[in-house]
Amino acid sequence: MRVVLWNEEEVTPPNSIPAVGMRIRSRSTLWRLLTNPLLHFGDDYCAGRIEIEGGLVLFLETVYRSMASTSHFRRRSDPLAYRRNQPNLNSPAESQKNIHHHYDIGNEFYQLWLDRELLYTCAYFPHPDASLEVAQVAKMDLVCRKLRLRPGQSVVEAGCGWGALALHMAGHYGVRVKAYNISRQQIAYARERARAEGLEGRVEYVEDDYRAITGSYDVFVSVGMLEHVGPDHYQELGSVVNRCLVQDGLGLIHCIGQNISTPMSPWFLKRIFPGGYPPTLREMMALFEPWEFSVLDVENLRLHYAKTCEHWLERFEHNRERVRDMFDECFIRAWQLYLSGCIVNFTIGNLQLYQVLFSRPSNNRIPWTRSHLSVPSDVP
Amino acid sequence: MRVVLWNEEEVTPPNSIPAVGMRIRSRSTLWRLLTNPLLHFGDDYCAGRIEIEGGLVLFLETVYRSMASTSHFRRRSDPLAYRRNQPNLNSPAESQKNIHHHYDIGNEFYQLWLDRELLYTCAYFPHPDASLEVAQVAKMDLVCRKLRLRPGQSVVEAGCGWGALALHMAGHYGVRVKAYNISRQQIAYARERARAEGLEGRVEYVEDDYRAITGSYDVFVSVGMLEHVGPDHYQELGSVVNRCLVQDGLGLIHCIGQNISTPMSPWFLKRIFPGGYPPTLREMMALFEPWEFSVLDVENLRLHYAKTCEHWLERFEHNRERVRDMFDECFIRAWQLYLSGCIVNFTIGNLQLYQVLFSRPSNNRIPWTRSHLSVPSDVP
Repeated sequence: MRVVLWNEEEVTPPNSIPAVGMRIRSRSTLWRLLTNPLLHFGDDYCAGRIEIEGGLVLFLETVYRSMASTSHFRRRSDPLAYRRNQPNLNSPAESQKNIHHHYDIGNEFYQLWLDRELLYTCAYFPHPDASLEVAQVAKMDLVCRKLRLRPGQSVVEAGCGWGALALHMAGHYGVRVKAYNISRQQIAYARERARAEGLEGRVEYVEDDYRAITGSYDVFVSVGMLEHVGPDHYQELGSVVNRCLVQDGLGLIHCIGQNISTPMSPWFLKRIFPGGYPPTLREMMALFEPWEFSVLDVENLRLHYAKTCEHWLERFEHNRERVRDMFDECFIRAWQLYLSGCIVNFTIGNLQLYQVLFSRPSNNRIPWTRSHLSVPSDVP
Repeated sequence: MRVVLWNEEEVTPPNSIPAVGMRIRSRSTLWRLLTNPLLHFGDDYCAGRIEIEGGLVLFLETVYRSMASTSHFRRRSDPLAYRRNQPNLNSPAESQKNIHHHYDIGNEFYQLWLDRELLYTCAYFPHPDASLEVAQVAKMDLVCRKLRLRPGQSVVEAGCGWGALALHMAGHYGVRVKAYNISRQQIAYARERARAEGLEGRVEYVEDDYRAITGSYDVFVSVGMLEHVGPDHYQELGSVVNRCLVQDGLGLIHCIGQNISTPMSPWFLKRIFPGGYPPTLREMMALFEPWEFSVLDVENLRLHYAKTCEHWLERFEHNRERVRDMFDECFIRAWQLYLSGCIVNFTIGNLQLYQVLFSRPSNNRIPWTRSHLSVPSDVP
């Protein structure tokens, strides 16, 4: 890459025309980049002290790929590293702060760039050129088909976002849903939507932590919450599933994951998702093994998440001026960096998206094949 | 259950008519059962010192279910227990002895009760009432579709049994296959079959250990070998995959597994599969994590293996007299016990069957959805 310093001095690799470049606006920024690039690049970029040429996504992809071939920055498996980056270990109180930090910054903001159902998790694109709206509904149907929802069943959802999946399940599959979330603004929005759609009798939104789930259910589902739970609490979440799932029940956990245990970048943890950690499949097993849950099906939708983030970034940039009415320029640049980083990490395979279907070990009413997954449900 | 002793003394649970019973022929057998039932039940059953009433499968199911509710016998996760049961740790030399013990006892024997392709691994029943012949071909096609085989590709197979999958891949999907196996009798049979079918130019059978695999391949496949590898060698197998798989390659491992780490029964390890161990998904990750392989798809075919074993046992018993011409009564009873035990363990969920599809982390030519799995391949 090309690097241009504050005094217009330029460093360019010999014998090549770099596709991307970085303008460093001050000596102190260069100093910070040299001491702790993973933390300071983000903050200095957001403050406008770094400008990127050639597009942020391409720039980040170039950086990540070159990090992978540099021994100092190469990703290494370090199962306890996430703890050093997360002094708060996702206790109920800390979880609330962490979730508030990201999700309670205004529903209007998310409405500017998410799909109309406000799904803030990986979509499922039946074809790569499907629209985001189509792909988010397809994701909900994929989850419902994997769980083989039948009318009259009861479902508990851990981490329900703005409530779309619970409403989709109740409205299209005839189930009753109890949905938990600790984001106050999301719960308020979800309740309002349930009332507006006349589904408040079949969907109950509870403003509480997953650890507070009570009752007994045919189905457990959690889409995009495990990233916020933290490996130290997977067994605790498993015990919640174990106490609330009926004998013949099915469960599904959908979450961002990794091939090896590495912490998120310090900037990402500080500014975007405090307490966040995408587990490896091995780490996820702490959820299942203590109760001998059977893993029935794992699907990795990594490239679908890269595409989802591309849609989000495009919509975000399209609505940049309206975001600017709500937040300052630093916020906008932080979110552009975050969404661009996600596109790159899912594209190059640093991040995965796992959908894991499971049951109790002796449940023989599990699906015989996957044939029910490929046909749309005929439930009204 | 009803227990009848050598002197016709009878122990029956009060207020119930037990569906199954056990006749213990001698005092010493009872003594052995009390001291180490997991080892001695098998040997005493095989020697005819124990007779079962009500059917061996139902009897074993009753025993296993009651063990699950008895704290002394309840399965517990014990990740190192397999080592205590396997003093030989699946080194190349020990592997050869282990494999010889089970597989080199006469191809004619296996021809009596396996399907016509001689597939000695879990079949895939499109419908539960499909025949074993149909289900074994369907399994091969499922594996080939998951691997998205394309004409001209090169495939390496680790543990090829009697060679059917390699021939199916070459004959129906137009690929070249190099297939490894350390069972001398299986390799001899496979080579003969390749010659007979005119496929010896496209399928090469190598009598050698997976550790000896050389070359570079588009596809790595291993169906039913990992059970014989041992957890201490998963990383070694992963390094073989890493050195032989091309950048855009796909790999598939199909193996018996468990929800928690427990050793096989000592009788099973001594008499049936020395060195055998069915891994948990967590343990399998040792194959993938050191090279950051991405797990793309996991399918659990547990109930398909229960049904496969039902077919095998039925055929075995149908051909009992012909087996009797080859082996003694003790051998027959051992194999009935083994196959019955497998039926029960897959039925009640003590054993799983995992098919794991994987790729390198940055391979973006992975399948977009699973739509290619549900339609039969149109490759000639």
